[in-house]
Amino acid sequence: MSDQNLLFISGPTNIPGRLRQAMDVQIRDYWAPDFVDLKLPAQAGVIEVFVTDSVHILFFPASGTGGWEAAITNTLSVGDKVLMARNGVFSDRWIDLCQRHGLEVQVIDCAWGDSAPADKIEAALTADAGQQIKAVLITQNETATGVRSDIASIRDPMDSATHSAPLFVDCVSSLASMPFAMDEWGVNIAVAGSQKGFMLATGMAILIVSQTGLDATKQASWPRTFFDFRDMIRATDEGCYPYTPPMNLMAGLRESLTMLSEEGLGIVYARHFRMAEGVRRAVSAWGFELVASAPDLYSDTVSAILNPRGFDSNLLTQHAVYGYGVLFGVGLGELKGKAFRIGHFGSLTDVMVLSGLATMEMAMADLDYPVELEGVAAPAQGYFRESRIGVGRLAA
Amino acid sequence: MSDQNLLFISGPTNIPGRLRQAMDVQIRDYWAPDFVDLKLPAQAGVIEVFVTDSVHILFFPASGTGGWEAAITNTLSVGDKVLMARNGVFSDRWIDLCQRHGLEVQVIDCAWGDSAPADKIEAALTADAGQQIKAVLITQNETATGVRSDIASIRDPMDSATHSAPLFVDCVSSLASMPFAMDEWGVNIAVAGSQKGFMLATGMAILIVSQTGLDATKQASWPRTFFDFRDMIRATDEGCYPYTPPMNLMAGLRESLTMLSEEGLGIVYARHFRMAEGVRRAVSAWGFELVASAPDLYSDTVSAILNPRGFDSNLLTQHAVYGYGVLFGVGLGELKGKAFRIGHFGSLTDVMVLSGLATMEMAMADLDYPVELEGVAAPAQGYFRESRIGVGRLAA
Amino acid sequence: MSDQNLLFISGPTNIPGRLRQAMDVQIRDYWAPDFVDLKLPAQAGVIEVFVTDSVHILFFPASGTGGWEAAITNTLSVGDKVLMARNGVFSDRWIDLCQRHGLEVQVIDCAWGDSAPADKIEAALTADAGQQIKAVLITQNETATGVRSDIASIRDPMDSATHSAPLFVDCVSSLASMPFAMDEWGVNIAVAGSQKGFMLATGMAILIVSQTGLDATKQASWPRTFFDFRDMIRATDEGCYPYTPPMNLMAGLRESLTMLSEEGLGIVYARHFRMAEGVRRAVSAWGFELVASAPDLYSDTVSAILNPRGFDSNLLTQHAVYGYGVLFGVGLGELKGKAFRIGHFGSLTDVMVLSGLATMEMAMADLDYPVELEGVAAPAQGYFRESRIGVGRLAA
Amino acid sequence: MSDQNLLFISGPTNIPGRLRQAMDVQIRDYWAPDFVDLKLPAQAGVIEVFVTDSVHILFFPASGTGGWEAAITNTLSVGDKVLMARNGVFSDRWIDLCQRHGLEVQVIDCAWGDSAPADKIEAALTADAGQQIKAVLITQNETATGVRSDIASIRDPMDSATHSAPLFVDCVSSLASMPFAMDEWGVNIAVAGSQKGFMLATGMAILIVSQTGLDATKQASWPRTFFDFRDMIRATDEGCYPYTPPMNLMAGLRESLTMLSEEGLGIVYARHFRMAEGVRRAVSAWGFELVASAPDLYSDTVSAILNPRGFDSNLLTQHAVYGYGVLFGVGLGELKGKAFRIGHFGSLTDVMVLSGLATMEMAMADLDYPVELEGVAAPAQGYFRESRIGVGRLAA
Repeated sequence: MSDQNLLFISGPTNIPGRLRQAMDVQIRDYWAPDFVDLKLPAQAGVIEVFVTDSVHILFFPASGTGGWEAAITNTLSVGDKVLMARNGVFSDRWIDLCQRHGLEVQVIDCAWGDSAPADKIEAALTADAGQQIKAVLITQNETATGVRSDIASIRDPMDSATHSAPLFVDCVSSLASMPFAMDEWGVNIAVAGSQKGFMLATGMAILIVSQTGLDATKQASWPRTFFDFRDMIRATDEGCYPYTPPMNLMAGLRESLTMLSEEGLGIVYARHFRMAEGVRRAVSAWGFELVASAPDLYSDTVSAILNPRGFDSNLLTQHAVYGYGVLFGVGLGELKGKAFRIGHFGSLTDVMVLSGLATMEMAMADLDYPVELEGVAAPAQGYFRESRIGVGRLAA
Repeated sequence: MSDQNLLFISGPTNIPGRLRQAMDVQIRDYWAPDFVDLKLPAQAGVIEVFVTDSVHILFFPASGTGGWEAAITNTLSVGDKVLMARNGVFSDRWIDLCQRHGLEVQVIDCAWGDSAPADKIEAALTADAGQQIKAVLITQNETATGVRSDIASIRDPMDSATHSAPLFVDCVSSLASMPFAMDEWGVNIAVAGSQKGFMLATGMAILIVSQTGLDATKQASWPRTFFDFRDMIRATDEGCYPYTPPMNLMAGLRESLTMLSEEGLGIVYARHFRMAEGVRRAVSAWGFELVASAPDLYSDTVSAILNPRGFDSNLLTQHAVYGYGVLFGVGLGELKGKAFRIGHFGSLTDVMVLSGLATMEMAMADLDYPVELEGVAAPAQGYFRESRIGVGRLAA
Repeated sequence: MSDQNLLFISGPTNIPGRLRQAMDVQIRDYWAPDFVDLKLPAQAGVIEVFVTDSVHILFFPASGTGGWEAAITNTLSVGDKVLMARNGVFSDRWIDLCQRHGLEVQVIDCAWGDSAPADKIEAALTADAGQQIKAVLITQNETATGVRSDIASIRDPMDSATHSAPLFVDCVSSLASMPFAMDEWGVNIAVAGSQKGFMLATGMAILIVSQTGLDATKQASWPRTFFDFRDMIRATDEGCYPYTPPMNLMAGLRESLTMLSEEGLGIVYARHFRMAEGVRRAVSAWGFELVASAPDLYSDTVSAILNPRGFDSNLLTQHAVYGYGVLFGVGLGELKGKAFRIGHFGSLTDVMVLSGLATMEMAMADLDYPVELEGVAAPAQGYFRESRIGVGRLAA
Repeated sequence: MSDQNLLFISGPTNIPGRLRQAMDVQIRDYWAPDFVDLKLPAQAGVIEVFVTDSVHILFFPASGTGGWEAAITNTLSVGDKVLMARNGVFSDRWIDLCQRHGLEVQVIDCAWGDSAPADKIEAALTADAGQQIKAVLITQNETATGVRSDIASIRDPMDSATHSAPLFVDCVSSLASMPFAMDEWGVNIAVAGSQKGFMLATGMAILIVSQTGLDATKQASWPRTFFDFRDMIRATDEGCYPYTPPMNLMAGLRESLTMLSEEGLGIVYARHFRMAEGVRRAVSAWGFELVASAPDLYSDTVSAILNPRGFDSNLLTQHAVYGYGVLFGVGLGELKGKAFRIGHFGSLTDVMVLSGLATMEMAMADLDYPVELEGVAAPAQGYFRESRIGVGRLAA
């Protein structure tokens, strides 16, 4: 029966039944005239989530890693310099990808728990009088540490520095769960995926490209076919696709966007903040600390929680699996064994989150962590009560 | 998102994804030779759950009420006397059904919270020297009060009284969640349904009939067609069905039985006891009392919980729905407004139960019930910890 | 792979993927306020298909046989006389059901292949000066013979005869595939099911009851609970259900009605006529005859086809199954071995029908039937071409 | 209703219900220990279909195009020379991909309708004394022309020429429908996909790499991350995946392999030959010709059929869609307007194929093609009769 329990990992997220059904489609011919009925609403809905007037929304049958690779291979060339901050495993992976593709990466190293530092980025750009930096690449939500970076605060100094480098943002683990404002923030390319805030199966990278981002493709010299923006845009303009499209994920995305729209994006964001805040209250009651170094950096999709000294977080997450059948995120990279993570995004509610917190408490008590079961989750319950807005009406 | 929350009503129960898939079948011809591939394993599995050598397992496309009607209209005649205990809404409904069908019902009235009293049944049978009582009808698990009756203790005095009346048992809300032993307990007809312990959609009554039960059909004089045992048994013997069969529920039952068998019936019963006991520990910590009047009567599938004086339990369950999107069972009949119920059976685990308990606590706190959030569910967590057996391996 | 082939039996019918998804619902509480969101649209849609102002639409978790039993046990009493025509297995079954329930059935025997004879019904009613006949029961579409009876032509003489008997119609295998007009035709109770024209799984009887039909319930003296109209109507008025409802079928029905409405009922009927006519052209080309004795009796949902002398139709249908994996309807009752049947209703198109015809031709050729493969199905193709209206746009 | 019709395009293919269910999985953690339960059987099954001892089976969340890109970017470097035959749109696309990635492609141009010519390949290799040709890339089944190339006959002269170039084969539209023998044929890398013979949704490229193929990765200098064999193999060895895996497609593949194994691969191939031959008999009866220039080149998965002069094949396929709701493949590249294609692979049976042939006949007759409906599909029926092996038993 334990396979009925919820997941509290940092993605992929629980898939609601409605989206499982939406993805369960019979195959259709993507040359047939009704293919656009699938694609156009998905594109239109994605534009609203990104809050942008950009018209180039690209769906690649790939993971988020594939999305990143598409972003850089279409806009940069071997030897180009890029500016990136490293504050966790996922920003580090992106740096690795850039280096493997022959880019010269100017890395701003940060403590794990800090966000991408706007001041250091500004300084680097100001110092780059020769405009050698061809792009700034930022991870909005560092999934390994539960830290969000403030994209708007990064764009402002880029503008002040009158630097022409475009801004690329990885919002894989934040989009559709935390606010994003592509145009207002001056983002030129954003990369997301199907399996996080959109609550779908894995397998589709979602890219949105501004005109500036698109202009950059002209000088890109990398060989590319599968991820080629030009092929994808040309096919899109013809109402088609350059190869066999991921139709079930496109159908799922169309429905996911309808769900998000029905709930209201503002309410979706508020629900995520509320679940995250409930988790944080419990963490505080446990006497534990988040990896994130300051409250304004707290991610609303995943919390990385430092273990007390002398306790191995891997044993804790393993015990939760084998003892209670519940999956939590493990500590990654330098946090391995030192932190565990609770994913609290996608298709979840406050009462589901309580199930995860109560489980974690039992697992900790079993392993003689310095927590008492008496009342530990109570702060989460208390917060959920005071912030409750009611569900109004049950879903049909 | 609240439609993703779990149900804690007294049935129907949450349907696991595996069984939703099993029921999602394309239609087949029930005259075709592969119909028996569907039916035979379902019958074989049901026999194991009932623990019987009886060979007549009948599947009617009907609710549990239909199953009851089938039991009496095939074995009794207008004017026949039957002996029944009334200790809640569901036993009362069965009495009403018998009376509407023209049976003379000798009712043993019990306090709500008590079980069917073996001593009074024995007395009634002993007093019935003329063997006028044609059947004894008992509800194993009274869903309205969360009370289980001990069937074995009822059969013994029937035998002592050397009374020939057969014993019919309603195990709709207990079968496949609490132990049942048809042959050992001397049950002649048992009635169950698809939507409770079998975790399926509603719509199929499951009857099992001993030879004695079958013999009784010979003198039954009621007009009947849809529920006629004779038609059903004749068709079954021919590998067919007397009318269009509920194929999706039969396919679902086959898979449900596989799931129960994989987990092991003994473990299934232990899991239900454990979940129920966790709920009872929390109830005790809340300072509340169960409707069930003694520990050996506690049901492992549903707990009916008396509200403190001055608090309307209907407001509580409504608040849980509208405030947190979680459904609990309401008080029925004379318990309306005075008790609420927590269903804890079918496709549930300990950590899911904690989600329900935590929700109920929040709802009670919101309505100024005399409970403090600090530590109330902790006894459930404590019990789940000490009784934990581990899940061994995650399901694939 | 043969389980991917279509069914050409006389029901249940192929379930389209959209309806399989619609029926695949997580369980909900039928006491919860959103139950009516499921039920009201289903009732509203059914009213349109029956073309009636009757407000009592009753959904029983039962087969069509259960629906018949509900119709008579709620409106008649033991010893009542009813007038019925027998022209095939299904009308015969209804007669048997009435007799087993103690009704005195005045049977008008007809040749298999004829419809219920309006003139004989008129004569019987005219002769019944004492108004002893309490109801006239007609099967609109005799599934065993592929014969439709003209309900309007039967009601007219009933009115002329100024006879007060209500008219009950079994439209199980015709509703939602062939026109029905409850009010215009003066039908008082109509019985249908989920698994034919509505293209759903088996398991729900659908009854619609006029005020006259309802008035008849007052004097009905049969014991009844499961099928009791009074309980069902009382519960319906309270937005509830007298016992656990068949929620997945109600959800499926809601979607089925949406599909029928999107296609347009008139077009649905035209599609069925067209598929049936295509089959009839092929039958004629084969040199075979329909069981139905005249063109105005031809059913648009199922065709019963007489085999040439000396050929056993059971061998033919068996060969189609074992040789090609395609199921056709067998001859029933006195047509056993003498006729086979092709169901052509529900979720089917012209090109699917051609697949069935082509298969039947191969099976006949294999068994040395006097047909030549050259051109036999061509008349069906020709008819489909000339009657083609185009699909306009592919479904999304 | 037309969305219920079958597809006769050249892939993606109809997805059987069993595989739609298999792909409909709740998300799981791919770091959890049960991930290997999903992956290992899929890998084991794939090995049987490829008939190889190679141990490196790589699943990329990508289309077939992505699979091709992975094959070359992991084994070759900019400026490397490769030998390829061009005999249709898909081999041409692969050439284009190689050229865009900076490879020097020595193209052997063939008539569309011819296969990759073993003699010319042998000559080219023999002439390449300096072993400048780093790989030979062949498309086993050219989907645009319905032509199969004989891989064994190509490998033999490669060996005779004692040339060390490895052999890469695109078997996207042939694997699991027509025989493949990786080791026997000396194939070093083979590329397939989820959406053709495996009858799954689109979105997963399947690569199998021999030791020789793997050795080639050592000198490959292309930047790569998403498609990097090294990352994938390292993760695979750890029972994990380098990024979020396409779990639903892996679950679907496991079940697809079970289906293929239950039917038996030999029977699967025989079924495809039989369906293809039925189509070819009908084409011959229509008086039309295949694009494929000789019988031993006929593909068993797709037939490309030349239109009579003066008739636009695009109008024909459009008419089939809008007139009858059935999708056929259009002519591609230089066959645009001159040929149409019938896909006959995956989840199809003989009687389904007849539905497609009968539809095509009607469409042709509507457009005044020189075909008479009388008996045109009859040869297909005749062939299906004589080659019938029976289905034995219906699937449960």
